[in-house]
Amino acid sequence: MSLIIVGTMAFDALETPFGKVDRIIGGSATYAAWAASNFTKSIKQVSIIGGDFPEHEIDALKQRGVAFDGVEVVKDGKSFFWSGRYHMDMNTRDSLITDLNVLAQFNPVIPESYQDCDYVMLGNLAPAVQMSVINQMKHRPKLVIMDTMNFWMSVAMDELRSVIGKVDMLLVNDGEARELTGEYSLVKAAKKIMQMGPKYLIIKKGEHGALLFYGDKIFSAPALPLEDVFDPTGAGDTFAGGFIGYLAYTGDLSFDNMKAAVIVGSALASFCVEKFGPTRLQEIGIENIDRRIDEFVSLINFEIKR
Amino acid sequence: MSLIIVGTMAFDALETPFGKVDRIIGGSATYAAWAASNFTKSIKQVSIIGGDFPEHEIDALKQRGVAFDGVEVVKDGKSFFWSGRYHMDMNTRDSLITDLNVLAQFNPVIPESYQDCDYVMLGNLAPAVQMSVINQMKHRPKLVIMDTMNFWMSVAMDELRSVIGKVDMLLVNDGEARELTGEYSLVKAAKKIMQMGPKYLIIKKGEHGALLFYGDKIFSAPALPLEDVFDPTGAGDTFAGGFIGYLAYTGDLSFDNMKAAVIVGSALASFCVEKFGPTRLQEIGIENIDRRIDEFVSLINFEIKR
Repeated sequence: MSLIIVGTMAFDALETPFGKVDRIIGGSATYAAWAASNFTKSIKQVSIIGGDFPEHEIDALKQRGVAFDGVEVVKDGKSFFWSGRYHMDMNTRDSLITDLNVLAQFNPVIPESYQDCDYVMLGNLAPAVQMSVINQMKHRPKLVIMDTMNFWMSVAMDELRSVIGKVDMLLVNDGEARELTGEYSLVKAAKKIMQMGPKYLIIKKGEHGALLFYGDKIFSAPALPLEDVFDPTGAGDTFAGGFIGYLAYTGDLSFDNMKAAVIVGSALASFCVEKFGPTRLQEIGIENIDRRIDEFVSLINFEIKR
Repeated sequence: MSLIIVGTMAFDALETPFGKVDRIIGGSATYAAWAASNFTKSIKQVSIIGGDFPEHEIDALKQRGVAFDGVEVVKDGKSFFWSGRYHMDMNTRDSLITDLNVLAQFNPVIPESYQDCDYVMLGNLAPAVQMSVINQMKHRPKLVIMDTMNFWMSVAMDELRSVIGKVDMLLVNDGEARELTGEYSLVKAAKKIMQMGPKYLIIKKGEHGALLFYGDKIFSAPALPLEDVFDPTGAGDTFAGGFIGYLAYTGDLSFDNMKAAVIVGSALASFCVEKFGPTRLQEIGIENIDRRIDEFVSLINFEIKR
């Protein structure tokens, strides 16, 4: 089934303890589309780019089934640019440069050809932009998931809470869940967030995996223990794209299938961090993903003799 | 099969965000014995206490099958006393008072009646004390596991490395694994630690669960997401006691059974933190543990449609 992905398509300059790149494509919608397109060939991208965004990168995504009708191209504008440096722990980073460029004028228009979509992923963006997309949908999609970040909690908490009240699922990391609710316990934080509106919640914990909440149910997914996390940029977007791509492919919104989707998202994210930018995601296919999922199975599989 | 537990039996004064207690029994060997005695009724305790250690606490352990021949009682001495205050995150704490008391003269003697034991747990103690126990064993036990803490890395690294070189398994937390090896990646740290001698390694990650390493194999166990961690004191010792108690009961040292033992230890630890001190461990039975293990199964169980 069709999937709308809303987010940034950008350039990043990245520095990790393992090296640096000056200019590589990035953006939440880029990572999410690469991840999701392993499962569904009907992806409707919503973003804004400058004339500088590489044609061959667009073509590569189109070949994966990604529609660009909803991607505004500002010919004489520059794409969003972000530059960051990761600390040794790879969980914390300094933003060095944030040039919004064309993103400053992002006012997404959902094309008529996108209106049949049942699955919507709202990547991390200004809450007002996320809300505008929801309001443009003529029928209620089966599943709307949203990502956000702590920045919006500081500058636009009211708008953020309004959007959270409209979606089916929120994805945040553990620090953001705590900041959003004032609760240290993630179980308590999850309850408060689900009281804000979303039926489902995913709390991402980086190298410690992710938790999926639905009512009183909790699913705990591990992260694959890796020798090196080469570049964590985009891992969260890749997780979200793999997660919702798998749901769109299976068309099954049961809690059991959501658990499977969390593992699929985790598997995709474990590839993402192996190389700079989306490089590794562009190399892998479904066979690689299947093998990685098997690694997750053997990582957590146990049987108790009683 | 019989199990030797070496460690402290003590008094603790504890302060957490949820309350405080001025004087409650504690100590690594106390927690470990309560946990292990759910599975094996042949536990040989090795410790040192003062005349102030409550008789009824000793009797309660004896009724669980814990032998005290190896526990030295210094009638006119005071038991080890530790006082600590936990921060809001429950992962960090300040030591307020550490009165070694009789622990300063701890020179464990392994009684002849303990020599048939195949399982040995060395709780966190001075490495020289741990080594003395190993050297007193007339035949090599099937499994010797040891706990330690970062303090010994600062003051007795050479002795610590010698003991690590003699045991089958080391249990440390993630920070200690990093400090011991200088590696941030836990996978790399694990390889370095296993090169020091132990065939097996468990890295405890508190609310994020635990990792079991053996050669190239890794098992990831979640922690049960809890609304409140009331008092984390003794959770690591309880984990270790439940782990080795289950192994001693099953007598099966395969990697598959070690994975099960990690879940059993995690289940026990999840009870430990529900009340101050070992209170909760003294209340529960095998039925509670079985139900808790079922919660672990549903927490991580998934199936992928391919």
